[in-house]
Amino acid sequence: MNPSPLSEFDLIRMIRRQARHFPPALLKHIGDDCAVFNPQFAEALAISTDLLIENVHFRRKSISPFFLGRKALAVNLSDLAAMGARPYASLLALALPADLTADYFREFIRGFLQEARRWQAPLIGGDLSRAGTVQIGVTVTGYTSAGNLIYRSGARVGDAVVLIGELGLSRLGLEILEREQPIEIAWVKKKTTLKKWAGTRQRYAALKAHLLPQPLLRPARWLQEQRLAHAMIDVSDGLASDLFHILRESRVAAELQADSLPLPPGFSDPALALDYALNGGEDYALLLTCSERQLSKAVKNFPAGLPPLQKIGRIVSGKPAIYLQRRGRRTRLTPRGFEHFPVNPPRF
Amino acid sequence: MNPSPLSEFDLIRMIRRQARHFPPALLKHIGDDCAVFNPQFAEALAISTDLLIENVHFRRKSISPFFLGRKALAVNLSDLAAMGARPYASLLALALPADLTADYFREFIRGFLQEARRWQAPLIGGDLSRAGTVQIGVTVTGYTSAGNLIYRSGARVGDAVVLIGELGLSRLGLEILEREQPIEIAWVKKKTTLKKWAGTRQRYAALKAHLLPQPLLRPARWLQEQRLAHAMIDVSDGLASDLFHILRESRVAAELQADSLPLPPGFSDPALALDYALNGGEDYALLLTCSERQLSKAVKNFPAGLPPLQKIGRIVSGKPAIYLQRRGRRTRLTPRGFEHFPVNPPRF
Repeated sequence: MNPSPLSEFDLIRMIRRQARHFPPALLKHIGDDCAVFNPQFAEALAISTDLLIENVHFRRKSISPFFLGRKALAVNLSDLAAMGARPYASLLALALPADLTADYFREFIRGFLQEARRWQAPLIGGDLSRAGTVQIGVTVTGYTSAGNLIYRSGARVGDAVVLIGELGLSRLGLEILEREQPIEIAWVKKKTTLKKWAGTRQRYAALKAHLLPQPLLRPARWLQEQRLAHAMIDVSDGLASDLFHILRESRVAAELQADSLPLPPGFSDPALALDYALNGGEDYALLLTCSERQLSKAVKNFPAGLPPLQKIGRIVSGKPAIYLQRRGRRTRLTPRGFEHFPVNPPRF
Repeated sequence: MNPSPLSEFDLIRMIRRQARHFPPALLKHIGDDCAVFNPQFAEALAISTDLLIENVHFRRKSISPFFLGRKALAVNLSDLAAMGARPYASLLALALPADLTADYFREFIRGFLQEARRWQAPLIGGDLSRAGTVQIGVTVTGYTSAGNLIYRSGARVGDAVVLIGELGLSRLGLEILEREQPIEIAWVKKKTTLKKWAGTRQRYAALKAHLLPQPLLRPARWLQEQRLAHAMIDVSDGLASDLFHILRESRVAAELQADSLPLPPGFSDPALALDYALNGGEDYALLLTCSERQLSKAVKNFPAGLPPLQKIGRIVSGKPAIYLQRRGRRTRLTPRGFEHFPVNPPRF
């Protein structure tokens, strides 16, 4: 079952190999009870933690260990993006079934470390254990200047509601995988292989959105530095759910324009496409609010090469609620799974 | 199944109730994508993360949610103790099965928050999700002055090997629970109830060691402030395994005196008692090395009310190895599960 059992030395070696990427403030990384760093470089240190659980957040047969390693870190970095923070480092607590090959583990770590290098969030510590299924706990830390932090609670009446990124695609990708259960996908390491398997451009976009989400650190960071956002969140549970977090924390309401929402492609039923956009989940888009003046300035100066700013609605006064304007009608949305312990529960 | 479904508001309320215990440097806690604090108070910030997984690290029927909440935080704080760090805050990523009652969750959080108050490690952020079994991801941060950090790598030839705490008891406690599978235990909230159920003093000590381990933050902190330890680790996998981490990181060997080891009580076979002491697991004792001079000073000035310093051996030159002196014979120990991905794998 396990042709090459993994020794702890292999593991430490793999992780120490990235040592040249370690930040100078790091005092102690892997190989002790805690990772330790000197945080004097930061006025504000952001920290976030998340679990990714097999058969809840992913299926082992539907994502390769390499992609899973990348995604596990990327979705956590998306939380740093939402605060306008710059990544500092990451930690990984990993539990693996005994029957997994060492290759699975190595590919996972390779993916994780590649993503860590890409976003300068080196793996500085963690923990390994056994479990019946794959369990991944990721913790990320990031930093920024204290005055520039962007909270969920900053939305103001009159603000534009602005989206960066796409909606509903990730859910389409998930559905392709659930429906077709391709055995090839379990070991795909390259985007080109994924593209070939996908066949069409649309299918590839959906699979890529689901398997390899990109944390929108660059646009978030730019908006933070330019002080062009009042409130921000990353869209992980679904646009409606996550917008509602901003509204609740800011004690305001929002009106969304259905026509302004980026809809996922390939739908014959526009109402269904709208549902995917509003409640897709795992989009890892950025949702923010800013004044119209800030928006003009942002649109004018937005750096080339970043996904565009899309105005999708505005903040209005009233109790936290989302109103959808569609073909002249105004309906109130009920964010799914909010009142009771939800399927994709919001963060606390 | 779920008489009182848990709303996110209940949860946030429960956590915000501890707000008066929050440290002043905290900029943002629950209710955003990340927790944020100003780390300027710290020269060295320690961070550690761990998973506790149902049916791997605990059984739901063998520990009450209240005790589990306490233990989940305590075992993580033990990692801070091992660095000589003072707790700053904690984060919790929790996944629960859909069929659990809200009471289970509330009791878990109550236990976690009680432990957090006790050790001044307030819960400042986290994440909730669903899973087939209970999964707990805890992250702790702590701080200290940079010059005083105690690493695994600091052991020197000639050092005494010193233990604080007990060995093997926790494993005895686990075995009582595994053997007797008492249904009463699943909702025990008080030590007095546990004591009554245990019947004898020995059984109570074993159950308490297993269900309610104490992070040895106070003695660790004292040793760190007095600069009386060269190397330190917490004994979570077993004395032999964890001592071996110090030896490997410090590139030295150790001789243990079997007669000096604190053996768990109630054994007719001393060799078996010794095995429990060396390889018990989940002891959450502190293991350190220091010069004989440091040890004399520590013994002389050790604050009252702390578990005593026990010299159990010494550091010798040589490749990392543990030699056990017993009745005039010297044998080399093989730490269990070290070479290959182990059952209770060491940290990396």
